[in-house]
Amino acid sequence: MCMNALEYLRRVADALGRLPGIGRRSADRMAYRLVSDRAQMRTLITVLQDADANVRFCVQCGNITTADADLCRLCVDPARDTSILCVVEDPGDILLVENAGVFRGRYHALMGRISPMHGTGPDDLRIAALIARVTSGGIREIVLALNTNVESDATAGYIAEMLRPLKVTVTRLASGIPTGSGISYSDPVTLGRALQGRQAV
Amino acid sequence: MCMNALEYLRRVADALGRLPGIGRRSADRMAYRLVSDRAQMRTLITVLQDADANVRFCVQCGNITTADADLCRLCVDPARDTSILCVVEDPGDILLVENAGVFRGRYHALMGRISPMHGTGPDDLRIAALIARVTSGGIREIVLALNTNVESDATAGYIAEMLRPLKVTVTRLASGIPTGSGISYSDPVTLGRALQGRQAV
Repeated sequence: MCMNALEYLRRVADALGRLPGIGRRSADRMAYRLVSDRAQMRTLITVLQDADANVRFCVQCGNITTADADLCRLCVDPARDTSILCVVEDPGDILLVENAGVFRGRYHALMGRISPMHGTGPDDLRIAALIARVTSGGIREIVLALNTNVESDATAGYIAEMLRPLKVTVTRLASGIPTGSGISYSDPVTLGRALQGRQAV
Repeated sequence: MCMNALEYLRRVADALGRLPGIGRRSADRMAYRLVSDRAQMRTLITVLQDADANVRFCVQCGNITTADADLCRLCVDPARDTSILCVVEDPGDILLVENAGVFRGRYHALMGRISPMHGTGPDDLRIAALIARVTSGGIREIVLALNTNVESDATAGYIAEMLRPLKVTVTRLASGIPTGSGISYSDPVTLGRALQGRQAV
């Protein structure tokens, strides 16, 4: 097969353009930069190969872990509270919750959210694994730390429904004005939720 | 060396975050997507390796070309006008100008612009190669198709100065209101330049 140079470049741009949040023009610029700077391109190839060979997902919570470990460091940490489980959409969200520094329980990553538009149903997510963890006992609270959009809200509702027979407390993150912001920067929905969730001072 | 899974992920995000227009959060999301979807990761690795092996730059104009060709398809095309040269910052800009469909001359990619902030001086660009092409004769006009910002303007000014003794016409792209836009969407500098460059109807 004989491809011209532009075709090779287009394939790189196409692969980058399928990543989240990367538009066509952005992918083109990245592709050009990579062929223009071979040191940068080879570094990227190497780190991708290393991650591919060494990163896998925790069989219990879905967090990332090294290839030689079935369970991630959070799932084997005896200091963590096993009775409370924080449910997130993506493994990357686990680090964000950890960085907040207030949660000491364990996690469960769904690996996405229910999205009819993208063809993602409940069976494509780790919801059955969540039910199994709760059914096996010892868990008293499930904190839903999902995003705030229509699909995530529907996912939260679905999970709450599935957990109802299991007599476990289901909570979700408070919705309100972000710290360091003000009501003049908040959209009406955020402001409405902040009002509904108002707290005594 | 023993690295944990997060470290592998961080290295991928770091490599992606050095690409143009990719911020920290965007790089993190891309890295997570890649470790979550290994087919996508392996496709990216393969296309990068293919591009690395098969793409090089035209020794004359700097355009991308295949590894087996010294000159790109535009430099060997006998139908192109050799007396007019379009100077661009990046090889990627050549395709943008080509797509406009009105330029039938040849190109010269500088491989960047003069940027004291990023430590890029005239000697880091293909300016000497441009002077050599003009000196060798047969070129009557140089069209500077650079971007419109302080650094690009300075680069254009520097090149025009270097070309002055060579008795070649130096032009630059018209500055004005983009097609399909209106004056209410234009910033004052764009509007000012459009006024200065006003044309008889």
